[in-house]
Amino acid sequence: MHKQLLGPSITFFPQPTTLVSTIDATGKINIMTASWVAMVSKTPPTLAVSLHHLRQSYANIREQGEFVVNVVPADLVLAADYCGLRSGKEIDKLAVTGLTTVRATKVAAPLIAECPLNLECRLTLEVPLGDYRLLLAEVVEVQATASAIDAHGDLSANSFDPLVYLGGIREYWSLGEKRATAYKDGLQLEKP
Amino acid sequence: MHKQLLGPSITFFPQPTTLVSTIDATGKINIMTASWVAMVSKTPPTLAVSLHHLRQSYANIREQGEFVVNVVPADLVLAADYCGLRSGKEIDKLAVTGLTTVRATKVAAPLIAECPLNLECRLTLEVPLGDYRLLLAEVVEVQATASAIDAHGDLSANSFDPLVYLGGIREYWSLGEKRATAYKDGLQLEKP
Repeated sequence: MHKQLLGPSITFFPQPTTLVSTIDATGKINIMTASWVAMVSKTPPTLAVSLHHLRQSYANIREQGEFVVNVVPADLVLAADYCGLRSGKEIDKLAVTGLTTVRATKVAAPLIAECPLNLECRLTLEVPLGDYRLLLAEVVEVQATASAIDAHGDLSANSFDPLVYLGGIREYWSLGEKRATAYKDGLQLEKP
Repeated sequence: MHKQLLGPSITFFPQPTTLVSTIDATGKINIMTASWVAMVSKTPPTLAVSLHHLRQSYANIREQGEFVVNVVPADLVLAADYCGLRSGKEIDKLAVTGLTTVRATKVAAPLIAECPLNLECRLTLEVPLGDYRLLLAEVVEVQATASAIDAHGDLSANSFDPLVYLGGIREYWSLGEKRATAYKDGLQLEKP
């Protein structure tokens, strides 16, 4: 199978589309798109997000030690893209996108109401990586709206319809269909 | 909008499905599924992956300082799930899944031939996080096969069909349809 060399680069794989919400010392809210986001521990629940060091969101997190990661549904794709294009230093992104905020329970930064799943985070460690800052944070509370939860009370991708970001090729995609249940269906390969 | 409290937890958003390939001191290959993977810097291109500290893959990376992240296409969903269920200490996962390896160019760990995109990585930093270890690595080479690249020579999600993992609800999904071009379509919100 012929392999083509692309060199050292940022390449593409499915990533989350999230909006990070923060406040500054005066209480002014900022929101910013982030797809360099991953879970990194269960003990305790810990999330990693990497931001450019010149971002207002980074300054706010540095100063306040708290932020919320809001998971974006597919129908908010234009708002999500917009919040990655413009700086909160110049523009009130909430006003342009029409997104609204509600109070979080454990952190001062607000939730974005229109995002069905919200992770309240408290900064625990920062790792400088060139122009970027990797921020590790404990997930101190998770909130969900009805659209993220099915009739059995479980989180559900069908009603949520989370937006996928493909970094490297810079495209937003919706989910298609469920292909397998994890930690289960792979065992079929052991059957004779 | 009513929000339901779920408590501190690992929750769900779209994540990549990858297979991490490593070798031990004797040259024995191991592969393992990883979805706690994110890009974290462009300067230089840096990837983060978090693994449980008891994993053979972690021991191999610790010892060798190198690994390959192989991005999984949707049709390999059973192989991907299997490689997260079983330990390389007990089972030859390449034999069970039928996956094959080819030599990398810049690291000793091999690529998985059936994965259309492969990131050759060199460990730069390790951060302990409870039972997990966050590994930061420079992406020293990216390789792609024809199925990852379209007629114009660009990376393409249509032919690649990368598999999405939804952590928290433990489901694998395929992509549906492209919803927007990033760093562009969001500007529509500024039009009067």
